[in-house]
Amino acid sequence: MSDHRIAPVVPVPVSVPVPAHEPPYYAVVFTSVRTDGEGGYGATAQRMGELVKEIPGFLGEDSARAPGGLSITVAYFRDLAGIEQWRDHAEHRAAKAHGRAHWYERYALHIARVEHSSGFEREAASDRPVG
Amino acid sequence: MSDHRIAPVVPVPVSVPVPAHEPPYYAVVFTSVRTDGEGGYGATAQRMGELVKEIPGFLGEDSARAPGGLSITVAYFRDLAGIEQWRDHAEHRAAKAHGRAHWYERYALHIARVEHSSGFEREAASDRPVG
Repeated sequence: MSDHRIAPVVPVPVSVPVPAHEPPYYAVVFTSVRTDGEGGYGATAQRMGELVKEIPGFLGEDSARAPGGLSITVAYFRDLAGIEQWRDHAEHRAAKAHGRAHWYERYALHIARVEHSSGFEREAASDRPVG
Repeated sequence: MSDHRIAPVVPVPVSVPVPAHEPPYYAVVFTSVRTDGEGGYGATAQRMGELVKEIPGFLGEDSARAPGGLSITVAYFRDLAGIEQWRDHAEHRAAKAHGRAHWYERYALHIARVEHSSGFEREAASDRPVG
């Protein structure tokens, strides 16, 4: 695939999921239920969404929130080094600590190595295995 | 963890994400954008959500759909054998074919081996590493 040291330059529209990449790469799955308090969550989430793009090997992320309150964010990285760099990022660490103190009722985090991937686009009208 | 041959018996409320399990286990991340047509999607999705519970090693799944139309479903399995059994399930195969023909504008599928996981609950008020 492309040089994984360079973050994507072209912004992806909200309605297009991060495409399947050639394995191996990593998915960071973050599922959460929020508290009733907003308290700056939106601004911080937006800021984190910008910062993570600067991490080497970041491949993109998708987020969705169900009416019942469950949120899922999946961020993709080329390798564990990028995930560790993001985990240790000072501003991200502060945001996570604030989140545990104020925003999250509960969450689960799963860091996973993608071994198989595939994609489908209506125009192509076929399932396209990537790896 | 628990005997992975037994599907969960207690239904989990919608607002509680699938908890972190002890690695290794697998996450199947399915991100999609739907077409305008409904055409039985809801009933089929519900049926699939019931059927997958019968797969040995199924650990649970979370779904969320963003206002913009992006849907994320993450299903967790103890091992690849369960994922393959679900992939090859006749009724599931038929539903996927119908989905490509009618329901999905595009999708990406990522099958990933979870190597690290952690969870947080407000009552405990601490990040709890699982593995």
